[in-house]
Amino acid sequence: MNIKHNGGSNHGLNFLIGTSKFLSAAALLMLAVLALSGPSAILAKAEGTQKANGNQSQVKLEKRTPTYWRVTINNPPFNIFGPETIPQFEKVISAIESDDNVKVVVFDSAVPDFFLTHYNFTPPLAESTGLASGPTGLHPLPDMLVRLSKSPVVSISLIRGRATGVGSELALASDMRFASREKAILSQWEVGAALVPGGGPMARLPRLMGRGRALEVLLGSNDVDGDLAEKYGYVNRSLPDDELDKFVDALATRISGFDRQAIADTKRLVDFASLPSDPEIGAGWDAFITSVQRPAAQANIKKLMEMGLQTNPDIEGRLGYYTETLQEK
Amino acid sequence: MNIKHNGGSNHGLNFLIGTSKFLSAAALLMLAVLALSGPSAILAKAEGTQKANGNQSQVKLEKRTPTYWRVTINNPPFNIFGPETIPQFEKVISAIESDDNVKVVVFDSAVPDFFLTHYNFTPPLAESTGLASGPTGLHPLPDMLVRLSKSPVVSISLIRGRATGVGSELALASDMRFASREKAILSQWEVGAALVPGGGPMARLPRLMGRGRALEVLLGSNDVDGDLAEKYGYVNRSLPDDELDKFVDALATRISGFDRQAIADTKRLVDFASLPSDPEIGAGWDAFITSVQRPAAQANIKKLMEMGLQTNPDIEGRLGYYTETLQEK
Amino acid sequence: MNIKHNGGSNHGLNFLIGTSKFLSAAALLMLAVLALSGPSAILAKAEGTQKANGNQSQVKLEKRTPTYWRVTINNPPFNIFGPETIPQFEKVISAIESDDNVKVVVFDSAVPDFFLTHYNFTPPLAESTGLASGPTGLHPLPDMLVRLSKSPVVSISLIRGRATGVGSELALASDMRFASREKAILSQWEVGAALVPGGGPMARLPRLMGRGRALEVLLGSNDVDGDLAEKYGYVNRSLPDDELDKFVDALATRISGFDRQAIADTKRLVDFASLPSDPEIGAGWDAFITSVQRPAAQANIKKLMEMGLQTNPDIEGRLGYYTETLQEK
Repeated sequence: MNIKHNGGSNHGLNFLIGTSKFLSAAALLMLAVLALSGPSAILAKAEGTQKANGNQSQVKLEKRTPTYWRVTINNPPFNIFGPETIPQFEKVISAIESDDNVKVVVFDSAVPDFFLTHYNFTPPLAESTGLASGPTGLHPLPDMLVRLSKSPVVSISLIRGRATGVGSELALASDMRFASREKAILSQWEVGAALVPGGGPMARLPRLMGRGRALEVLLGSNDVDGDLAEKYGYVNRSLPDDELDKFVDALATRISGFDRQAIADTKRLVDFASLPSDPEIGAGWDAFITSVQRPAAQANIKKLMEMGLQTNPDIEGRLGYYTETLQEK
Repeated sequence: MNIKHNGGSNHGLNFLIGTSKFLSAAALLMLAVLALSGPSAILAKAEGTQKANGNQSQVKLEKRTPTYWRVTINNPPFNIFGPETIPQFEKVISAIESDDNVKVVVFDSAVPDFFLTHYNFTPPLAESTGLASGPTGLHPLPDMLVRLSKSPVVSISLIRGRATGVGSELALASDMRFASREKAILSQWEVGAALVPGGGPMARLPRLMGRGRALEVLLGSNDVDGDLAEKYGYVNRSLPDDELDKFVDALATRISGFDRQAIADTKRLVDFASLPSDPEIGAGWDAFITSVQRPAAQANIKKLMEMGLQTNPDIEGRLGYYTETLQEK
Repeated sequence: MNIKHNGGSNHGLNFLIGTSKFLSAAALLMLAVLALSGPSAILAKAEGTQKANGNQSQVKLEKRTPTYWRVTINNPPFNIFGPETIPQFEKVISAIESDDNVKVVVFDSAVPDFFLTHYNFTPPLAESTGLASGPTGLHPLPDMLVRLSKSPVVSISLIRGRATGVGSELALASDMRFASREKAILSQWEVGAALVPGGGPMARLPRLMGRGRALEVLLGSNDVDGDLAEKYGYVNRSLPDDELDKFVDALATRISGFDRQAIADTKRLVDFASLPSDPEIGAGWDAFITSVQRPAAQANIKKLMEMGLQTNPDIEGRLGYYTETLQEK
């Protein structure tokens, strides 16, 4: 595809950069967003895929008991996180915050091979970036993650399949993470596509696994399997796939029987010792938005879309491998 | 047992809460303390158990050499930490602080199956809460732990058997921890009984093992065996039980031969990088005192005492299991 | 050797301490430095060893590609880091900082059994301590390490053989560390010789592996093999020796193909979350300089030199063992 230097809805980043000095920050962001919408052929194809699930709820909340909830992500075939997911997800976070009984929330996936993966590059991103800031003052995506971490409710990510990008960031914002030893893949793939991750992993990973391993995960941008995720502390533990559900359910049930106030007061002090500040998370989001506007990221996303990102299961399934092939093209 | 709504020495928390608005904070604390004294039948039984060891030293200090000391906890049958233990333990900490030769102190237990466990719920807690603050300005229990961590002397916990509550907190306040792979059990059981832990684990655990695993230990409140304790970094290492004593003795002997000033200067800079502040530890203690006054905690402690806490080896030995059964009663 | 109480170039620390109140701090440092020059017999022997490589470059920079560099340490037989190494190493750090293309630098060794080891005790240390402070205001040795960590370029230490003292500190200042499972030995041996480590490990180790394991490494001062280094997070991973080179090369090649700006922006935020401040590193250097002036350190270095430090492969190869024998002499 050639990058067209005009104002059409399918323009590339070159145009954006050429005119940026004449544009307000808001307009600039809007253009960056439009620039991400990708080539029309791929767009149509992907929209077809997405539309099948467009009006359905992608985030299902089940109250197993008044104190133990399940949030199941269901946006087949890849559990891509798009602008339309944000308000659905925010509703769940608000429900967690305002309910007086819930003590534990488990996040899992209804889609085989995917827990939750990267941001959706096909629909206009303005649908999400146009949203007002959340209660923390941050963009709604990092806002939701920050609120989840600070909530008095205990959050547990049950990871089966790929947790990449937003998927990894949701897991990291959860209080605990348990992975399928055989079927979990975690990654922050962004640097491999010339992006900076936006949902907080620069703040959260070094506090969890130390600087060296955090830099390997972030700058290596490669797929991390269940064994390595446990060894590095990316997850609390990796369990044999056929034991994972039972283990997480038993832990969640156990905690849901404990005293809500004792949980909240204990967690608050752990928060003090371990949570990054909101401005630190905000700086990561800003770095992501800036990175998205650069030609290198635009070119890489275009290449990946042409290769089959968001349509080809092999691309989505081996993202760490395919980002490395970008440099040869 | 019925909770009696009068001023007798065996009243429960309902009375406490009903009158709390008319009482000073000091009186409130005293009542909370009295409220913890439990049903008289159990009290008598437990006092009998405790009295056997009442006037004996529970904390034995042996100077193996002028530079290498051993502190052995000996309060059978469960190594419960009670108000009478505090001044005994404080004497040891003061001795460590004021001696010019000691370089290494190893903490171990003379009681099979127990390193050191939870606070004693039978004698009036006023015996401990009535004590004046320590040099740090904190209550004497967190005060001693904070002083141990900051001491220029190297402290090592040798953990065989259960290290729960104060036992886990002593281990965490020590500079290093080595556990028996087969016979060590670590836990912070408090949230399982509607309590908040008071001796610093909300501050220390996330700095040691990361937020996710710390929250699992604290909010899961379950027993952690030697393998998992090593995997999570709860201890430095777990060793086969028949190698543990030799290993710790060799390490302590080794360090006791090194230069005292080099040890102190090196440790001081590690302290700067890794110790929580005293107010952070103080906040944890305050949260514990508050939690103790709540009906949920009072009810759980009463249930546990009736089940055989402090008298039945099976309850003390499987505390993680029994806290989960509380919600069914 | 008798310690002579005169102003000759080979005086010991007793003299230094006796006159210290009459000397300026600068003169004191110079004397400490001279005091380290050791007994003349050993000096001559060691100088012979060192001179063979004296005018050769000990630090070789190879640009495998414009974006992927290798820095190979080559100062046989032990890869001792001496005053003459500092400007050579600084040149490499400056090149990394000023080049517009480099994205990844791998540090490795050309000397069998040694990655990089302790400071050279034979030549007058004034050659290094006389050097002006670096751009950070710190002494050039900690200055270089601090600059490496903050550089937008990704640094990886490939550790085969011994990484002790400066060797361990270079590895810790690198962004990532990979070790040979069979052939790597890491250690901070200083406390075993009555020294305080000067290149930052009190700041870096607890942030990497937690307080307890960091104190064990620093105060135990013992050799750490590949398995334990991985378990403690001293290195990212230990790999079978015959897979190590291929693994590191693949990772470095991979990252060198990614976008330079995305790497730099991502790393900067990890830096914020994980790097100690310069003054904290400076405090460690000051503690080292102070420790070097003490009689205990002087005596230990003298004993070690007589035993064969810097000349006998068995002493250099089993430093953890030999420091423990010092106390018996």
